[in-house]
Amino acid sequence: MSKTVSTKQEKRPVSPPKGIDEIAARRRIIIEGVKPEVDAGRYPIKRVQGDRVLVEVNLVADGHDELAGVVRFRHSEAKRFSETPLEPLGNDRWRAAFTVTTLGRYLYTFAAWVDHFASWRAAIVKKAQTGENIEVDMLIGAALIREAAQRAKGEASRELRQIADRIGESRSTVAKRIELVVSERVRQLMQAYPNLRYATEYPRELGVVVDRKLARFGAWYEMFPRSCTNDPNRHGTFKDCEKRLAYVASMGFDIVYLPPIHPIGTTHRKGKNNSVVCTARDPGCPWAIGDADGGHKAVHRELGSLEEFRSLTKQAEKHGLEIALDIAFQASPDHPYVKAHPSWFRQRPDGSVQYAENPPKKYQDLYPLNFDTDDWPALWSELKSIFDFWIEQGVRIFRVDNPHTKPFVFWEWLISQIKARHPDVILLSEAFTRPKIMYALSKLGFTQSYTYFTWRNTKKELTEYLTELTRTEVFDFFGPNLWTNTPDILHEVLQHGGRPAFISRLVLAATLGTSYGVYGPAFELCINTPREPGSEEYLDSEKYEIKAWQLDRPESLRGLIAQINRIRNSNEALHSNHDLVFHPTDNDHLICYSKRSADRTNTLLVAVNLDYQNTQSGRTNLSLNELGLGNDQWFEVTDLLTGASYSWHGAYNYIELNPGNLPAHIFLVRY
Amino acid sequence: MSKTVSTKQEKRPVSPPKGIDEIAARRRIIIEGVKPEVDAGRYPIKRVQGDRVLVEVNLVADGHDELAGVVRFRHSEAKRFSETPLEPLGNDRWRAAFTVTTLGRYLYTFAAWVDHFASWRAAIVKKAQTGENIEVDMLIGAALIREAAQRAKGEASRELRQIADRIGESRSTVAKRIELVVSERVRQLMQAYPNLRYATEYPRELGVVVDRKLARFGAWYEMFPRSCTNDPNRHGTFKDCEKRLAYVASMGFDIVYLPPIHPIGTTHRKGKNNSVVCTARDPGCPWAIGDADGGHKAVHRELGSLEEFRSLTKQAEKHGLEIALDIAFQASPDHPYVKAHPSWFRQRPDGSVQYAENPPKKYQDLYPLNFDTDDWPALWSELKSIFDFWIEQGVRIFRVDNPHTKPFVFWEWLISQIKARHPDVILLSEAFTRPKIMYALSKLGFTQSYTYFTWRNTKKELTEYLTELTRTEVFDFFGPNLWTNTPDILHEVLQHGGRPAFISRLVLAATLGTSYGVYGPAFELCINTPREPGSEEYLDSEKYEIKAWQLDRPESLRGLIAQINRIRNSNEALHSNHDLVFHPTDNDHLICYSKRSADRTNTLLVAVNLDYQNTQSGRTNLSLNELGLGNDQWFEVTDLLTGASYSWHGAYNYIELNPGNLPAHIFLVRY
Repeated sequence: MSKTVSTKQEKRPVSPPKGIDEIAARRRIIIEGVKPEVDAGRYPIKRVQGDRVLVEVNLVADGHDELAGVVRFRHSEAKRFSETPLEPLGNDRWRAAFTVTTLGRYLYTFAAWVDHFASWRAAIVKKAQTGENIEVDMLIGAALIREAAQRAKGEASRELRQIADRIGESRSTVAKRIELVVSERVRQLMQAYPNLRYATEYPRELGVVVDRKLARFGAWYEMFPRSCTNDPNRHGTFKDCEKRLAYVASMGFDIVYLPPIHPIGTTHRKGKNNSVVCTARDPGCPWAIGDADGGHKAVHRELGSLEEFRSLTKQAEKHGLEIALDIAFQASPDHPYVKAHPSWFRQRPDGSVQYAENPPKKYQDLYPLNFDTDDWPALWSELKSIFDFWIEQGVRIFRVDNPHTKPFVFWEWLISQIKARHPDVILLSEAFTRPKIMYALSKLGFTQSYTYFTWRNTKKELTEYLTELTRTEVFDFFGPNLWTNTPDILHEVLQHGGRPAFISRLVLAATLGTSYGVYGPAFELCINTPREPGSEEYLDSEKYEIKAWQLDRPESLRGLIAQINRIRNSNEALHSNHDLVFHPTDNDHLICYSKRSADRTNTLLVAVNLDYQNTQSGRTNLSLNELGLGNDQWFEVTDLLTGASYSWHGAYNYIELNPGNLPAHIFLVRY
Repeated sequence: MSKTVSTKQEKRPVSPPKGIDEIAARRRIIIEGVKPEVDAGRYPIKRVQGDRVLVEVNLVADGHDELAGVVRFRHSEAKRFSETPLEPLGNDRWRAAFTVTTLGRYLYTFAAWVDHFASWRAAIVKKAQTGENIEVDMLIGAALIREAAQRAKGEASRELRQIADRIGESRSTVAKRIELVVSERVRQLMQAYPNLRYATEYPRELGVVVDRKLARFGAWYEMFPRSCTNDPNRHGTFKDCEKRLAYVASMGFDIVYLPPIHPIGTTHRKGKNNSVVCTARDPGCPWAIGDADGGHKAVHRELGSLEEFRSLTKQAEKHGLEIALDIAFQASPDHPYVKAHPSWFRQRPDGSVQYAENPPKKYQDLYPLNFDTDDWPALWSELKSIFDFWIEQGVRIFRVDNPHTKPFVFWEWLISQIKARHPDVILLSEAFTRPKIMYALSKLGFTQSYTYFTWRNTKKELTEYLTELTRTEVFDFFGPNLWTNTPDILHEVLQHGGRPAFISRLVLAATLGTSYGVYGPAFELCINTPREPGSEEYLDSEKYEIKAWQLDRPESLRGLIAQINRIRNSNEALHSNHDLVFHPTDNDHLICYSKRSADRTNTLLVAVNLDYQNTQSGRTNLSLNELGLGNDQWFEVTDLLTGASYSWHGAYNYIELNPGNLPAHIFLVRY
């Protein structure tokens, strides 16, 4: 039975197992469950300047030792990582935060280690209470402190050695030594010189794209430059646009987005209402880009000169506005690319060029680019040069048309190239397609994206969609921009709901979205006649003709828009979506939600009537703790739209909204 | 205004962007959202032989083309991957399955590509319906087929060329050619020879550990070999154990797990009820391993010889049982390691060896191993040799004591080493600690784990816990083994609930768990006196003394256990937890859940009364679709415990359970 272990083993050293060195063998912590982390770190998260990036990880270790860890972070151009300690949340979950201050890209990662000194300290404090002899344990602690002294330098090292001596000094009382062990000074010193030899380092460095604040928080106004006159027979110019800037600025918008400003093709040009019959007077659709005058780097002759465009951007700046341009990578048959680069288009066996089609629909005025061309390096390079060109003219914001019909790898390359040199550039993806494709484009670089907001109209739809956008990992990479309408989308709720619907949708977009947009002046003038019943196209759409808008019509929402944008600007709660909470009401027509500023000093509560015909009333069931309110607390809500104040109490409060009057409250909550 | 693009670009070739070659530039699909995938592929999933592994991915691509993809899989020892096509589920989600038949490790990964032929086919079928001229389109399709012909060989290549000719043949009717285009034969041929040049390959190969079925589905019986006599004054032997096998087998168990069978230390040996006072007659605790006779590779002198142990394993086999051993990596002060390898233990400054402690508790009879030793390669190697030794004696199942107090990296190495040579080995982790640590041990290799089941007793607790284990990613790596009791855990529901509680907990363990265990004969004899009130320790625990159990006591659950294990074995629904569904009832004491076999031919519905004092009745609210039942359907349920049958109808059905009689139904559902 005496099958004992041979003592020979003590004599010949055993070689370490294959692939495991001493460091690997003694790393005791697994770092996992990192949040935020998009697709195992394949894509960066997005934040804006000044954001506190909250990170969480699991630190999982064997045994009962105390652990310590840090998040390490740096701007990609900084040489060294900074560190912030991770704080335990319980159940092996840890949290830290760091602030991103510089535009561009940050990297963050984690390290964690067993804190033998803290483990020893926790044990000795317990043991000391039992009154047993702990001299030997004190020697163990003193040895750990001496090890730290070796890692420290100069004064700190000397101080640590002195502390070790005092703790190992058996003539001193236990109480006195324990007091020293748990002192803040010892804690600080020991924390400053941890033993990182066996630290686990998280294997990935994760990215943060840091944009300027306008990338998250901004009000967009889309307008057609050619319609900036009061005369339908005169083609508007950049000079006319300049005159229109004061009007747009008076409504409090931040960004003026212009549809394409390039020469418009004449071959197969579309007439009014997208007709295939086109008269000589029809100005064409701005998205049919290119004619003999030039393509994506040229300016439509009738709008003016490139100098005048630059002047427009400068004037906009004076009004506190920024110009956003439309980038639509497609060509009219007259675009110079078609002759100069035939391989950039799909050639058919009969020698014709493939136009856009979606059987049975045909778009003979548009040639898609052929990204399958063997000449793709030249194509990519040329397309990048289009962005470079307009960036050189002072443009920093681009709305990109249909990016989901061009390869993802192209966009990832293009955007990384652009943002490496110009981290202030903002790109809005106009990908109206399936969710995973929209999300993919955002992951690989687009700053913002159009959303399904326009088609989310019921309380259930809005709640579910905004919850997906703000409470799931989508929040980390997707920058939603909520549009009330676009030249392509006049939703039936606007067609049938009239002015109350316009107001409700405006309030929803401006308060649910940190970024939102309207296509004007069609929006503020409540234009709502579709081309035909069931269509989302506008009748006599500005896409195919010049409009002269009567801006001073009395029913214009201009004043209300100005008021709502003022409310947005002066209430920090609306500048982020980190804290959007939906509160139940007992009426399905009444939607209610709140937002709070990061510092909790600003809380807004919004209620909107989604029935555009009838007055609706009901009671809220507020999630009081989400509002920072006690169960039995009185508080004051002031409607920032009307100035009216109400004393509210607890979760249940009465709301009544008459769409004929004002279908929404934007309450400031005070207590 | 004539800022056109220079045509010079056509002449000088542009070099490709840095880091992007032609292949990368033309890969159009992103593969993401892979399920199952544990921690970005860092850890394998677990399955058993014969399982169909269901996998899902997102295939996200630009544009409107048709896509195709496959899951690729192979046993680690196979040279080539097999493939199964992915099938679309809608919204860019795709699914496939493959079956794992061989023990060991499988790898799986994905590839996807744009199917230009399928895209062309979809468009031409639509176009053909409009009646327009599609001769040019037919030529495009013919060209795609000729490309496939080039990839094919021999007869297939010839056939594809002929098909291309017929499709390009303008004298043939469109209808005839479309018929050919959409024919199954063309579909097959084109699918067989896809253009994989620009296929996206998923960057990771994911692992599947494939165990034998007993790794998932088995009933465990823990017993102390030294108590296998009927005489409390005689130390049981392996020979006595052999005699006990028939008894265990008669209850239908699959695995007999023996606490450590090694020599027990005498220094600081614990007496009855874990007393520090120990008499000469006290046999000691089997987990205090090692004395002068030997350590982990030795057999306790009083149990018999190694030959007798081997005989026991052979006899067990004859009874359809497998022996599981306990591996507890710790030493009594008398273990030969202590002298032979002092560095494997923590040496204190006073020359003593650090014993286990959890202040103020001390375990002077136990020395933990010091994994921080510089001699770790020898320590690891020696510990591995312990497993190798017992594997050589014919043992394939190990219950590992407190693995969470030894480094993760050690276990990952050890288990991968063991399973590489012996993929039939099953390791049960006895880590009663925080959830993330238990899960980490499972991820890095343990086949099974003890769970919190013992402390989950209310309907809410059981529902939440089993949902976490079966409906989240935990399901993919964690093999729960539900124990009614252990020598360390006599839960208060058993202490106070008496026989009805024993029955209910047995039914719950045996039907909620695919693997479950009891510590007997204490369990079947309903032993339920704690050492003191509030303690989960048994009074006069077998851990510290020899017991002579009266197996034939009339209140023994032996018959019921046999019946339940028969039900388990003959109902496929209980062999897996993939389909565990909880059904609401209107009584919080009544828990109700169902399981179905993968082929849906076997459906069980279990109802248990969690009130061990009073009869409880109530109505189910069955999720009928989860049971494969229509809303208004009659069906028959037969209680496999009593044989009674009931006609049930719809979701609401009456249940009444008297704990004094039988506190559970195990219904077979028939329709």
